[in-house]
Amino acid sequence: TMDYSTNDSKSTSKNKVVAVVGGGLVGALNACYFAKRGFQVEVFESREDIREAKIVKGRSINLALSHRGRQALKQVGMEDTIVSKGIPMHSRMIHSLNGTQSPIPYGKKGQVTLLMQRLDTPHSAETYSTTKLNFAHKLLNWSTETGAMTFLRADGAKEEIQADLIVGCDGAFSAIRKQFLRQSRFNFSQTYIPHGYLELTMPPINGEFAMKPNYLHIWPRNTFMMIALPNLDKTFTCTLFMPFDEFENVTTGDQVIEFFQKYFPDTIPLIGADALKRDYFRLPAQAMVSVKCSPYHLSDKCVLMGDAAHAVVPFYGQGMNAGFEDCLVFNEIMDQLNEDFSAVLPEYTRVRVPDDHAIADLAMYNYVEMRSHVNSKWFLFRKYVDNTLHMIMPRTVIPLYTMVTFTRIRYHEAVKRWHWQDKVRHYIVHSSLYKGL
Amino acid sequence: TMDYSTNDSKSTSKNKVVAVVGGGLVGALNACYFAKRGFQVEVFESREDIREAKIVKGRSINLALSHRGRQALKQVGMEDTIVSKGIPMHSRMIHSLNGTQSPIPYGKKGQVTLLMQRLDTPHSAETYSTTKLNFAHKLLNWSTETGAMTFLRADGAKEEIQADLIVGCDGAFSAIRKQFLRQSRFNFSQTYIPHGYLELTMPPINGEFAMKPNYLHIWPRNTFMMIALPNLDKTFTCTLFMPFDEFENVTTGDQVIEFFQKYFPDTIPLIGADALKRDYFRLPAQAMVSVKCSPYHLSDKCVLMGDAAHAVVPFYGQGMNAGFEDCLVFNEIMDQLNEDFSAVLPEYTRVRVPDDHAIADLAMYNYVEMRSHVNSKWFLFRKYVDNTLHMIMPRTVIPLYTMVTFTRIRYHEAVKRWHWQDKVRHYIVHSSLYKGL
Repeated sequence: TMDYSTNDSKSTSKNKVVAVVGGGLVGALNACYFAKRGFQVEVFESREDIREAKIVKGRSINLALSHRGRQALKQVGMEDTIVSKGIPMHSRMIHSLNGTQSPIPYGKKGQVTLLMQRLDTPHSAETYSTTKLNFAHKLLNWSTETGAMTFLRADGAKEEIQADLIVGCDGAFSAIRKQFLRQSRFNFSQTYIPHGYLELTMPPINGEFAMKPNYLHIWPRNTFMMIALPNLDKTFTCTLFMPFDEFENVTTGDQVIEFFQKYFPDTIPLIGADALKRDYFRLPAQAMVSVKCSPYHLSDKCVLMGDAAHAVVPFYGQGMNAGFEDCLVFNEIMDQLNEDFSAVLPEYTRVRVPDDHAIADLAMYNYVEMRSHVNSKWFLFRKYVDNTLHMIMPRTVIPLYTMVTFTRIRYHEAVKRWHWQDKVRHYIVHSSLYKGL
Repeated sequence: TMDYSTNDSKSTSKNKVVAVVGGGLVGALNACYFAKRGFQVEVFESREDIREAKIVKGRSINLALSHRGRQALKQVGMEDTIVSKGIPMHSRMIHSLNGTQSPIPYGKKGQVTLLMQRLDTPHSAETYSTTKLNFAHKLLNWSTETGAMTFLRADGAKEEIQADLIVGCDGAFSAIRKQFLRQSRFNFSQTYIPHGYLELTMPPINGEFAMKPNYLHIWPRNTFMMIALPNLDKTFTCTLFMPFDEFENVTTGDQVIEFFQKYFPDTIPLIGADALKRDYFRLPAQAMVSVKCSPYHLSDKCVLMGDAAHAVVPFYGQGMNAGFEDCLVFNEIMDQLNEDFSAVLPEYTRVRVPDDHAIADLAMYNYVEMRSHVNSKWFLFRKYVDNTLHMIMPRTVIPLYTMVTFTRIRYHEAVKRWHWQDKVRHYIVHSSLYKGL
């Protein structure tokens, strides 16, 4: 029933201003999407140019890029450049207490997750002539009625702009989202998990990685766990996840060594006892939050994407991928509804909320699974059954991890199929056991 | 291990200032508790004196007072006066589509819930010489580090005070709670249900109640429902609960009558067709929110109670009772820990959070149960089994509603026992069915 053609809407988009708040990964990718459609795009970032910022020791961010994220990058021609800078990971490597290491592949051969240290999406955004990046711009005020926005610049001056659409990509503690909270019937939750995290560095040995690269190394220890991820400079970043109250029990260098002797003895020579004693106390343990909300839009002038809409805990490696897929899904709806914001925004909420809530829940589920089940023979046996079923019936039975990481099956559909498959698997596992498999 | 006596702490409490933010039911009751202990109490309410405010048509609040609330009032000597102004309710009355009415008692004989139109807790608070009620005081700023607070008065002047404890009793949209949100590791959720509510008045007939008083009248209709509660002036307040999108389908007076003809035909002559057509559109349907958070305290200077800590949907009649019990539980912990705020506040969070979360969940559960199950024979049969078991084993099997409404069994314990009893009941019901009961 839309009576204007795509051409018409493309020509009107040229006069429209899209203000993207937040110049991080999702904000910059979104800028590319809107610029490609011909909108005037203004990106506002409160920090200084984030490309010039150094990677902070102890708060490095390792970014897992998998199928959904890559598809979103591909659509705006950014996939190849970015993929070339990633480290491919094809397996987990489980470190048991006695030092043995067992690999568990993520999927079939060729199905890899790319580990990125940073992604220069802002650079790509800048290649569009209609896009302007405004760093050190702090959002002071905005109105979803009029689209008027006021920013405070680093030089103390105020800058005002008039936006046709405000896109909030300003992260887990989004300023844009705060105005949503004042509206009636806005559902919102923020849940901190009892675990904090702390980062340690494992240096190269003779210029080479100290452990096998291309693996996500995991030391599952039930109530806590450590993981290690490779960096381009041949170091590993080790991240210890532990309940805050257990962090509080370790207060001296000697206690650190004692703790590592007990639970991660194989890592002490690799990290180095002195570095361990020092780096453990470099920063306090960091908190992790899961944020869910609904709706994602306010009137026809404002929409939330990425962590601003759904911060997830980092245990499924889907945070960045879900944020990138937000841009892709929004773009698909823009096509379907001819860039009519008053139709696109509610549709985006309708389509995307159940998927983002599903991945937030899955990440929380994996927070438990990674620490405990990954270790057990029962879990390995179930993975084996999953993979075997997938081999026999590749279209019918797809392991959950594969659906989430290597396909674009909607997150909430993946969860649904998983529950169904779980029943089938349960039946097969139990009849196998009876048959004495 | 506390080395100061109760007397010592009583004498120190006299120099301490407790600022209660919010002069509603819970705020005023709290003021009594703190005044009774000898604290200097300042109550700040942003509205004008709420006792002088008229009851707004369409937004009257019917307050269910049951055991927990009464115990909390009793402790500060307020029970008798308040109970004398309530209308006792001992049963539900289910109205089926064909007009038949079936009573379902709430508990045993003598177990009643009191229906209040308003409770004059501020009046009681004012009887303490150490308590001051400050109306039309709007909170501008406060600090949990120093206890400094700034208020804006109606005359435009600012007022500053120094508090030793700030008690946030400022309701579901608490201003005090907003500062908690800025702290790390504060868990928070606000969930709006898809239903809205709308109030209608059923006038007296020949100076008498139009239906039997002393009953909670319920018209359960699965996706929606209506309830009616008696008022002291012999009117009933009828409240229609319905999904917002169904409210939007009824836009004319004729559609209202058509809708009532179909679902609540027995109420049309009692409310009056003309009043119905008019009053249905007096106010838009109101939203209902469930709020949960944790912790309830910030440092040793601030604590949340009542709706500010846990707004619940109104389907278990426990909102006010849970808020009043907050005051009582806090008071018990003040006794145990000798009024030492640095110990009392964390203990209050530890003890009270699981109970408030349990009643919030139960209210949400009843939101479904009241609309649907209340109607079915299966539900009535289960109630019958429950009550029979309770008669045979009064200490072992207590119906959930009884535990929640007529005891002080902790809410989360009540839920636990209920799950356990459910298993027992399941066994008995099914073995009864097999025996052909």
